[in-house]
Amino acid sequence: MCPVSDERAAVGRTSAGTLRVGVLGARGRMGLEVCRAVDAAEDLELVATIDQGDQLSKAADAGAQVMVDFTTPDTVMDNLNWGIDQGINVVVGTSGFTEQRLDQVRGWLSHRPGVGVVIAPNFGIGAVLMMQFAARAARYFESVEIIEQHHPKKLDAPSGTATHTARLVAQARAEAGLAAPPDATTDEVAGARGADIDGIRVHAVRATGLVAHQEVLFGTAGETLTIRHDSFDRASFMPGVLLAVRSVSNRPGLTVGLDALLD
Amino acid sequence: MCPVSDERAAVGRTSAGTLRVGVLGARGRMGLEVCRAVDAAEDLELVATIDQGDQLSKAADAGAQVMVDFTTPDTVMDNLNWGIDQGINVVVGTSGFTEQRLDQVRGWLSHRPGVGVVIAPNFGIGAVLMMQFAARAARYFESVEIIEQHHPKKLDAPSGTATHTARLVAQARAEAGLAAPPDATTDEVAGARGADIDGIRVHAVRATGLVAHQEVLFGTAGETLTIRHDSFDRASFMPGVLLAVRSVSNRPGLTVGLDALLD
Amino acid sequence: MCPVSDERAAVGRTSAGTLRVGVLGARGRMGLEVCRAVDAAEDLELVATIDQGDQLSKAADAGAQVMVDFTTPDTVMDNLNWGIDQGINVVVGTSGFTEQRLDQVRGWLSHRPGVGVVIAPNFGIGAVLMMQFAARAARYFESVEIIEQHHPKKLDAPSGTATHTARLVAQARAEAGLAAPPDATTDEVAGARGADIDGIRVHAVRATGLVAHQEVLFGTAGETLTIRHDSFDRASFMPGVLLAVRSVSNRPGLTVGLDALLD
Amino acid sequence: MCPVSDERAAVGRTSAGTLRVGVLGARGRMGLEVCRAVDAAEDLELVATIDQGDQLSKAADAGAQVMVDFTTPDTVMDNLNWGIDQGINVVVGTSGFTEQRLDQVRGWLSHRPGVGVVIAPNFGIGAVLMMQFAARAARYFESVEIIEQHHPKKLDAPSGTATHTARLVAQARAEAGLAAPPDATTDEVAGARGADIDGIRVHAVRATGLVAHQEVLFGTAGETLTIRHDSFDRASFMPGVLLAVRSVSNRPGLTVGLDALLD
Repeated sequence: MCPVSDERAAVGRTSAGTLRVGVLGARGRMGLEVCRAVDAAEDLELVATIDQGDQLSKAADAGAQVMVDFTTPDTVMDNLNWGIDQGINVVVGTSGFTEQRLDQVRGWLSHRPGVGVVIAPNFGIGAVLMMQFAARAARYFESVEIIEQHHPKKLDAPSGTATHTARLVAQARAEAGLAAPPDATTDEVAGARGADIDGIRVHAVRATGLVAHQEVLFGTAGETLTIRHDSFDRASFMPGVLLAVRSVSNRPGLTVGLDALLD
Repeated sequence: MCPVSDERAAVGRTSAGTLRVGVLGARGRMGLEVCRAVDAAEDLELVATIDQGDQLSKAADAGAQVMVDFTTPDTVMDNLNWGIDQGINVVVGTSGFTEQRLDQVRGWLSHRPGVGVVIAPNFGIGAVLMMQFAARAARYFESVEIIEQHHPKKLDAPSGTATHTARLVAQARAEAGLAAPPDATTDEVAGARGADIDGIRVHAVRATGLVAHQEVLFGTAGETLTIRHDSFDRASFMPGVLLAVRSVSNRPGLTVGLDALLD
Repeated sequence: MCPVSDERAAVGRTSAGTLRVGVLGARGRMGLEVCRAVDAAEDLELVATIDQGDQLSKAADAGAQVMVDFTTPDTVMDNLNWGIDQGINVVVGTSGFTEQRLDQVRGWLSHRPGVGVVIAPNFGIGAVLMMQFAARAARYFESVEIIEQHHPKKLDAPSGTATHTARLVAQARAEAGLAAPPDATTDEVAGARGADIDGIRVHAVRATGLVAHQEVLFGTAGETLTIRHDSFDRASFMPGVLLAVRSVSNRPGLTVGLDALLD
Repeated sequence: MCPVSDERAAVGRTSAGTLRVGVLGARGRMGLEVCRAVDAAEDLELVATIDQGDQLSKAADAGAQVMVDFTTPDTVMDNLNWGIDQGINVVVGTSGFTEQRLDQVRGWLSHRPGVGVVIAPNFGIGAVLMMQFAARAARYFESVEIIEQHHPKKLDAPSGTATHTARLVAQARAEAGLAAPPDATTDEVAGARGADIDGIRVHAVRATGLVAHQEVLFGTAGETLTIRHDSFDRASFMPGVLLAVRSVSNRPGLTVGLDALLD
C-alpha cells in the first residue's frame, strides 16, 4: 500500500524545497496513513519506509532528515537513540512515554544539540485545540461537565482524553480560585451524575455507530459554551503529524505534546 | 397579573365560537401562564380565575365549559369531583395521581357520561413527541443512551422524564427481541457509564445556565439518530394545555397523558 | 474492486430463487458498496456492473430483473427511460429529482404497467425515521428549519433528503392549517436565511470531515425539538437498498421514498 | 426594581475593600440587570443609579469610582466626557461607537492619564471566548462555516456576532495562507449555501423558542471541531460587565472589547 519503494528513494527527488522523511512502523495502521499523507504533501518526500525486519540504516542511506515513529513501546527507544545519534530529527506517536523515558531522550539530545524530537500522545489537532480551549474557558464559568462518546468496543470509561481534559479544567479552576460547580442533587440513581475526575463530572456514552467524540459543556448564568470534537477517522491525525514533521527541524531538543507547535 | 376580572366574565363575550374557560390555581406560576395563554387565544375566553379563598361556584356562575386545574394534590380531587358533578370538562396538570385516584375519577365520570377529563403529567408537546419517537425508533437500533441536562438546583438525577423515556425504550426493545446494547467496558471510573434504568444507560448533566434538556441517542452500524428536546420556559407547556382545553369536550371519560391527543 | 465480472454474469448462476441485479454507476463510491452488498446477499445475484463507457444493453443481455442506479442527475433519466422500456425494474438513489422529473417517470411507467420504480432520496433507515418523525411533529410547532451538513464534494445543495424532508413538513403544516413560520428579517445578506423549499428554510453546510448529517429543528414558545441524523458510512444505506431491490418487483408504478417499504 | 436608593448611597458602606459603582441608564433593561448584579456582588457597592431626569453629579456626590453606562448613543458621549473629567473610570455597553467617537474618547483621556474606560460591543464572555477560539482554530482547518440561530423577531441576518466571527476567521485564514474552503456545489437552490461574508459561509436560522445561539464548525480530513455558544438570558452579560468593572481601574486609557480583559 505504502507507495514509496527503495528504488524511488535511491533515485531521489532532489527538489530543493522538499523535506526527506522516513517512516518507522510503516506497515502498521498509523504508519500506512503517515506514508500516504507524506507522499501526498508537495513539500515532503517519503524516502524510506521501515518496519519489522528492516534495518534502520535504510533511513540514513536514503538521506532522511526527519523520521516518524509509530512503532511499539519496545522498539521506540532504540529507534530514538539511533536517530538522534545520526543527527536525524524524530517525530514520535508511539505510546508508553514515562517521565523517566523522556529524561533519557533529553540526555541523548544533550549530546546532539542541533537535533529535534517531538513526542506527542495525541496528534489530533482538533482534540488538542479542544483541550486548550477548555483549559482557557474554565476560569470564566461556574459549571463544567464533560460528555465523551465512543464506539462500544472501547475498554476504558471515561476515555484518556476526557480524563486529561478534566484534569486540565480542574487545575485551571483551582488556579482561578473557583469553588466546586453547584449541584443540589440529593436523590441520585447510582452513576447518573457520572464519574468524578478531580471534582469534574465526566459522562461516557457508548453506542454502535459512534467513533470518537467529546463535548466540554461550560455554563454560567444565562449562557453555555460548548466545545465539541468529532473524530471519524485515523486520517484526522495526519495534519498534526505533518505539522510536527515540518516543525521539528526548527525545534532543537525535546518537545512534548502538539500544543507547543500550535501558535 | 392575570388579566381577566370577574367583571369582565360577568359582562361576557358571547362570541358564538369561543370556549369558556376557568382556571383553578390561577395565581400559581403555572396558573398565571395558563391565564395568559387562554386570554391570548382567539377561540378561548377566560371567564373565571380561582385560587385559595375563592368559591368553585365562580366557575359555574361564569358559565365555564372547561376548567384547567394547576392546584395541589390536596385540593385537586375535590375540584374534580365538583367539576364533573357540574358537567364541566376538566384539564388537570396537578401532580400526584396514583392508579387509585384515577379509578376514583373514572367512577365519578361513569355517572356523568358526557363529561371529559384530561389528566397529564407533562403538557410539553415537545417532550411527549420526544418520548413517542424514542419508543418508535427503539427497535431499529442496536444501541441507545439518554443524556439529560438540567439546571443545578434540580434534586433528582436522572429526571423523571429521562427515567420514563428509558422505560419506554426498554419495553420497545424487549418487544422487538433486542439484546442488551453492546458495551465492552472493563475499566470504569465509578459512574462514568451512567445510571442503569431497565438496562438503558442514562446520564444526568447539571450546569448553571441550563434549563431542561434531553437527548436520546440511537446508534447502529454507520449511523446515529438523535432526538433532542430543549425547554427554556414554562410557556412551553401552554400549547399542550390549550390542545387539551380544545379537545377535552370531544373526549368524554378519562384521558391520561397528552399522547392520546396528538394525532 | 467490484467482484462481479462480465464472464461471471455470462456463466450465470441459475439458482431458481435469486433475483438478477445490475448496478449502474458501479465504479462510483455508492455503486461499489451496492455491488458488495448485492454480492453478499444469498438471494441476490449481481449480473451486470455498468459505468461510464459501458452500454446499458449489458444489463439486458445479462438478464437483469432489477437495476440499481447510483449515477448522476445528467444520466439517470436516460437510464430510467431505457430500463422501463426494457421492462426492467429500477431502484434509484441518484439525486436531483424534481416534481417534473417524477412526472416524466410516471409517464414512461404508464406505458409499461408491470414495471416498478423506487426512487429514494435516502436509503438509510435512520434518515427515513427522521423524515417520518419530522412529518409527524410538523403540525405542533410554529417554526421549523432544516440544516443539512455534508462533505464538500457534494454537487447539489440542499441534499435530496433535505428537500424531501422540507416537502413532507410543508405538506403536514398545510394540512394542519398552519401559517408560514414567523420571520421578521428585513435586513438580509443574500443567502443568509437559506433556500426556500415549499416555504421551509433549508441550510446546506459543506465541510471537509463531514459525511452526511441532517438536523430538523422545530420551535414553539419556550421549547425546541431537534431530530438529527448522522451517517458516517455508506454501509448504513445498504439494508435500505436491498429492501428496495427485493420489493420493487412487487410494486408496479412509481414509489417515492423508502417509507412505503418499511411497514 | 433597582434596590439601591440615594439614602443608602448617602449613608455609604465604607467597607475598605469594596468598589463604589454608579449605573447610568439604570431603569433600562440592561441597566436594571447591572444594578442587580452589582448589588449582589460582595466586592462591589452600588452607590448611584441614574436615568433620564437625574443629574450626573449624583455619581460624583456618591463617590462612585466606576460608572457603568448602558444609555443611548445620544447621551453616552456627554456621560463619558463628564466622567473622565471627574476622574471616574467608565465601563460602556452602549452601542454606536465609530472610530471617530473612539478617537474623541482617547483625546479626553489624554488629559486625565489615570482614568480608564472600557467600551465593549458585547459583554457576553461566552460569545467573546467563542470568537477568540474561532480565530485561533481557523488556521488549522480546511473548512469552516458558521450557523447562528435566533428568535424570529430579529431583523438582521446574519447576526452582528456571526458577521464579526466570520471576519475574524477569514482574517486568520488569510494570514495563514489558506485557500478558500473546498466546495464542489454546482447545483444550488438559491440561498442554500448561506451568505458569503469575506469568503466564509454563514447560515441564519430563525425559530420561535430560540433565543441567541451560534455554532462555528471547523472541519478537516476525518474530524470536526465545533464551538457553540447558547445565550438564554440578558443575565449572561453580567459576568462580563462585572469583570470590566473590576478591571477598569487598573487599565488607564481606552480599552475596546472584552477580549483584552480575558487572560
